[in-house]
Amino acid sequence: MSMSNANFPMDAEGRTYHVGVKRGELANRVLTVGDPARAMVLSRFLDGVDPATPAKTVPTNLFSYSSHRGFLTITGRYKGVPVSIVAIGMGVSMMDFFVRECRAIVDGPMVMIRLGSCGSLSDAAVGDICVPSSSYLVQRNVDYFAPGDAVAKPYHLSRQFEADPEITKVLVKNMTASLGEGHVWSGVNATADSFYSSQGRQDNNFVDKNEDLFDELLAHEPNTQTLEMETFVLYHLAKTSTAAPLKHSALVNIHNNNSIRAGGCMMVFAQRKTNGFITKEDVARIEPLAGKAVFDSLVEVELGSESELHSSVDSVWEEKAKVVCV
Amino acid sequence: MSMSNANFPMDAEGRTYHVGVKRGELANRVLTVGDPARAMVLSRFLDGVDPATPAKTVPTNLFSYSSHRGFLTITGRYKGVPVSIVAIGMGVSMMDFFVRECRAIVDGPMVMIRLGSCGSLSDAAVGDICVPSSSYLVQRNVDYFAPGDAVAKPYHLSRQFEADPEITKVLVKNMTASLGEGHVWSGVNATADSFYSSQGRQDNNFVDKNEDLFDELLAHEPNTQTLEMETFVLYHLAKTSTAAPLKHSALVNIHNNNSIRAGGCMMVFAQRKTNGFITKEDVARIEPLAGKAVFDSLVEVELGSESELHSSVDSVWEEKAKVVCV
Repeated sequence: MSMSNANFPMDAEGRTYHVGVKRGELANRVLTVGDPARAMVLSRFLDGVDPATPAKTVPTNLFSYSSHRGFLTITGRYKGVPVSIVAIGMGVSMMDFFVRECRAIVDGPMVMIRLGSCGSLSDAAVGDICVPSSSYLVQRNVDYFAPGDAVAKPYHLSRQFEADPEITKVLVKNMTASLGEGHVWSGVNATADSFYSSQGRQDNNFVDKNEDLFDELLAHEPNTQTLEMETFVLYHLAKTSTAAPLKHSALVNIHNNNSIRAGGCMMVFAQRKTNGFITKEDVARIEPLAGKAVFDSLVEVELGSESELHSSVDSVWEEKAKVVCV
Repeated sequence: MSMSNANFPMDAEGRTYHVGVKRGELANRVLTVGDPARAMVLSRFLDGVDPATPAKTVPTNLFSYSSHRGFLTITGRYKGVPVSIVAIGMGVSMMDFFVRECRAIVDGPMVMIRLGSCGSLSDAAVGDICVPSSSYLVQRNVDYFAPGDAVAKPYHLSRQFEADPEITKVLVKNMTASLGEGHVWSGVNATADSFYSSQGRQDNNFVDKNEDLFDELLAHEPNTQTLEMETFVLYHLAKTSTAAPLKHSALVNIHNNNSIRAGGCMMVFAQRKTNGFITKEDVARIEPLAGKAVFDSLVEVELGSESELHSSVDSVWEEKAKVVCV
């Protein structure tokens, strides 16, 4: 942990300070989840995995790295294409760490797709999948709760940032193939900075002033479908990413000057209108179906030719591929 | 993970959904840190710990629980007084999970003290300790980066919330005894929602508009001393906590109607003016000195008589104490 630069700390090995990734360990195509256990479950879909791999472990033919800050990175190939899975924990700041530190060590365009869980404010039922085409942010307006002049509202609802439209389309198609018609929804997501106050949960241990929050969300955006805690940051950072990591200027136009294309999908764990919660059995059934659909989408999205992507020389997907082929 | 209520999910055992704590496992006095490894190091100070306990493990005489979401709770006694250590990871949302889920399963007043790491914007040097008497929040103003009418500023700097003044005083006293004169500072903390953009770090992979952020922080509050990612939320939630968990109305006045008293202190890991970063050796030297000072402070703060606190009947600090005495 001897870090050389307080502006963007990396260790002597070239690993970023929190996510712990370094050049050649992360593919241009990344699936991100919250829970490391989910990352391990989904890693079973990657090429060459021994079906007898014990539960709660990473298959031995894949590269993996656990950072001291709780991030887990797994890299391999899916249908021959290099892909990574990164488990990031929870919350807006963790998504920020993930996007920025991963972007810092990969050359060329990237696609990042989140598979998470959410609460549903719509007719999407427990166990259904939502693929939000855009997201806004719900922040506790802390100034409202401080002494001083009156502040208008206890929660701030931001403007929206869109997912990459092609990724959304491909995700809806593949999720529908995986889960069946009637179980896949597309609407607007709200990312909240708390699981509790800014998601309208009532707790008389704190002054939260959130009794009317659901109504405010629906007035702000009638098509608000889901509530969770990370997706907005992914969409937002993708849209504010620059062309700096792209190798060739021709790509700039293709990607609207953004080096990251982002999409997201989430499993409904909580039905907030009926107060229902998913069972463990349903999670175990839906997680792999949704995961496979994300991998299929991740490799279907156009990112340009091999020469535009991060070099496979000295990469873990090249090294591990060699081992598998021997 | 069969959760009964989408408003405040708890499992069949009564554990909260993310932190994974339940009644009788958490003391009224809590030290919170980010890194689980730090929690394990500091747990060596608790009563009855075998000095031969291997590194990176929790001493066997203490209660501990790791949640599937990365929270680690350790409970025992310090100088005979029940205390807990909770490692929460990073970011504003993780602090929110910690405060709310811990508050939900403890009766009576609580004191929560954070020991973290920070960047210094002041003369506090790498390896020094800062004990902020108040904190504000630095949030990326995402609307600024969205299409639409112009928005004034790319970052929002909030109003301040204060730490409990007695806790701040006791922490400064005990830290000075532990680290020596000249190494302990008290000023104002800024909690940022990103390690990067809202802490003024420059990254040309993203449009961040944060070149002037340090100047803006110092204009907002000339006594801004430290930058980190969690403390504001602790101070803010303590000041917005209600008297609901208190057993006797007499206590309401003592605690200004708040059931939580909060304080914080942080080790300077990054000097942002000189671009310096702490060494591994200095962390190993300072962490225990600071940790001991926090434990001394945690048990020194007045919380009322035993009868006001969470019952020791069926608590892990009572059970474990019995075992130690046998």
